[in-house]
Amino acid sequence: MRFADRTNEMKASEIRELLKLAEDKKIISFAGGLPSSDSFPIKKIDRMCTKILKDYDTAPLQYGITEGITELRVTLAKRMKKFRIKCKKENLIVTNGSQAVLDLVSKILINPKDIVAVEVPTYLGGICSFRNYQSRFLTMKIDSNGMKTHELEDKLRKMGKKKREKVKLIYAIPNFHNPTGVDMSLERRKHLIEISKRYHIPILEDDPYVELRYSGKDTPSIKNLDKEGLVIYTSTFSKIFAPGFRLGWMISEEKFARKITVAKQGTDLCTNIFCQYLANEYIKSGAMDKQIQKIRKMYRKKKDKMLEAMDKHFPEGCKWTRPKGGMFIWATLPKKIDTEKMFHEAIKHRVCYVHGAAFCVDGSGHHSMRLNFSNADEDKIELGIKRLGNLIKSKI
Amino acid sequence: MRFADRTNEMKASEIRELLKLAEDKKIISFAGGLPSSDSFPIKKIDRMCTKILKDYDTAPLQYGITEGITELRVTLAKRMKKFRIKCKKENLIVTNGSQAVLDLVSKILINPKDIVAVEVPTYLGGICSFRNYQSRFLTMKIDSNGMKTHELEDKLRKMGKKKREKVKLIYAIPNFHNPTGVDMSLERRKHLIEISKRYHIPILEDDPYVELRYSGKDTPSIKNLDKEGLVIYTSTFSKIFAPGFRLGWMISEEKFARKITVAKQGTDLCTNIFCQYLANEYIKSGAMDKQIQKIRKMYRKKKDKMLEAMDKHFPEGCKWTRPKGGMFIWATLPKKIDTEKMFHEAIKHRVCYVHGAAFCVDGSGHHSMRLNFSNADEDKIELGIKRLGNLIKSKI
Repeated sequence: MRFADRTNEMKASEIRELLKLAEDKKIISFAGGLPSSDSFPIKKIDRMCTKILKDYDTAPLQYGITEGITELRVTLAKRMKKFRIKCKKENLIVTNGSQAVLDLVSKILINPKDIVAVEVPTYLGGICSFRNYQSRFLTMKIDSNGMKTHELEDKLRKMGKKKREKVKLIYAIPNFHNPTGVDMSLERRKHLIEISKRYHIPILEDDPYVELRYSGKDTPSIKNLDKEGLVIYTSTFSKIFAPGFRLGWMISEEKFARKITVAKQGTDLCTNIFCQYLANEYIKSGAMDKQIQKIRKMYRKKKDKMLEAMDKHFPEGCKWTRPKGGMFIWATLPKKIDTEKMFHEAIKHRVCYVHGAAFCVDGSGHHSMRLNFSNADEDKIELGIKRLGNLIKSKI
Repeated sequence: MRFADRTNEMKASEIRELLKLAEDKKIISFAGGLPSSDSFPIKKIDRMCTKILKDYDTAPLQYGITEGITELRVTLAKRMKKFRIKCKKENLIVTNGSQAVLDLVSKILINPKDIVAVEVPTYLGGICSFRNYQSRFLTMKIDSNGMKTHELEDKLRKMGKKKREKVKLIYAIPNFHNPTGVDMSLERRKHLIEISKRYHIPILEDDPYVELRYSGKDTPSIKNLDKEGLVIYTSTFSKIFAPGFRLGWMISEEKFARKITVAKQGTDLCTNIFCQYLANEYIKSGAMDKQIQKIRKMYRKKKDKMLEAMDKHFPEGCKWTRPKGGMFIWATLPKKIDTEKMFHEAIKHRVCYVHGAAFCVDGSGHHSMRLNFSNADEDKIELGIKRLGNLIKSKI
């Protein structure tokens, strides 16, 4: 068969293969980016299934409009006020998880060899979506204030106009960034908006962890700072409801939303209708707010446990982030340790993580690793970190 | 914003806009391609939601693998034997409806200006998916034996080798074709396989209506006749379970399935896990087979009612198909009538359909219309057809 050119540039997700290894119950896994299964409100979900079939009869089972059911879009638009994001249902599209947003935005923006500006490291699923459309990358490092926007500014300024016009998108994860857990400072967010405005490059603000803050105060979203309609905002129900329902949403200018809708018609016709009714009921009944309180408490404890254990068991020469929210800690080891090579040894020691290079499009990240605390069994966090610490010690 | 080139070629689905007009309860709609809401097994679905949460605990709520849950893939592979399609779970991927198959297959095969061979008329959603990747079209007419494969053969033979290599896919809907309801003969199916083999062009066999036969005997699927692994088969739960669950599946060679899986990772991570467990329970409990019996009876009656009413109320000079299954009748009116222009008058007469040109990529179809019988209220079919017949009579 003769494949499309883009198919040659697609790469299988590395995490996916790792997750298979991590399925062994004897292994303490800090690898996946999963919410804790313990947290899912099963009984509530069971009751809600009955309720929506009673209240809405056959509507949750039939086809629906491409943008998403009106009820949920109205409910979500209202909820977004909490984050000071003004929008109407016309700005809002419900998608198959926020992964589908990454795909659809790429689909309507990216020509082969167009450029996406990404952080190093960044979310692996984002890299996959952009690559599916043969993107190239412009990279910016991250420090404790998040994306180094001055790097972006410098690189864009030094580019010729023609090349700069190929930069179609800036991809940012400002809150509890995946994989580092770092928060982007208000100053940097403002700077990013300025850059976006100057060069007319839209920002895709990926915000899955905004509700998972364990300490400190919220920083306004980039979308909230946006006066020009240059920010496409996306978030997801995967962390605050259940990822198995595959529900995310995006907010953009109406004109942009209409283009996404046309692309979405040929992509999946419409998003799961049944689960949209569930999500609407989940928010409106107040169950979501309760659930968020519950998982915040749960994950904060796990995060604190992991940080304590790292303080205790990781040797000198290692450093790591101390996130105020989200699901991940990013650890950087002494330069002589290659975390990708060490991975199979870690599996033998019955512990695992994702190696840093998987998140870096510029070939860096070889001495780093991402540790997930949300899905780890609280009682096993210390043991897992101890195993990992011992393995690292044996290498230096 | 600077959009991708492909975005300029995307077209909003015309049916979608029509469906909005048809929402008025006073209008008898033969427009949508919807299964009858009356048919949905609501109580069964409610009970199954409870059961899967009991049997599988949190698994239906968590992330799952990209290809689909193992349980459902094994169950489906087994069920496909009924249609004499041999496959293992490795050949089978569960998707967001079969629309997502059309998208993913296009994604990995179609470069801009590549060619897809399609029937005229053909499924509108197929056209949308291919166009999203900037395809061009090679067209074949349909007669009472389905796709005119000799037309395809002639056109391919007359093409230069270089142009022929741009033909990446043949798209076929052999059973109860949408929009015409026509069945492709065994002879034509065999001929199509031969052409596919000779020129190494894969066939995408779209088979949503295979379970909706009301009379006559099944013809072997094209996939069943395929010895070379050139057929990609797709079907859906939308007509036999509930379209709101957005579940379809595809069957292909393992190597092809792996490439689809990589593309799917960046597209949507995985298909709705909860609904996959529901679908598995639905098949295994025997509820699906019962449901199929029920809707066959229901839709056969509606189809017969519609055909009777057309015999009675449509004037001379009109002709139409007499399908043995599926959901649609295709009517062709005298040449002086443009069905697209007549549409708004039909709405005034409180009846509607989809105009034929919407399904034709070659600019034909202006005197035809698609009539859906499955979603029409049985008691109103005659009245609707009478209104339409009177309108047509007033035009000739």
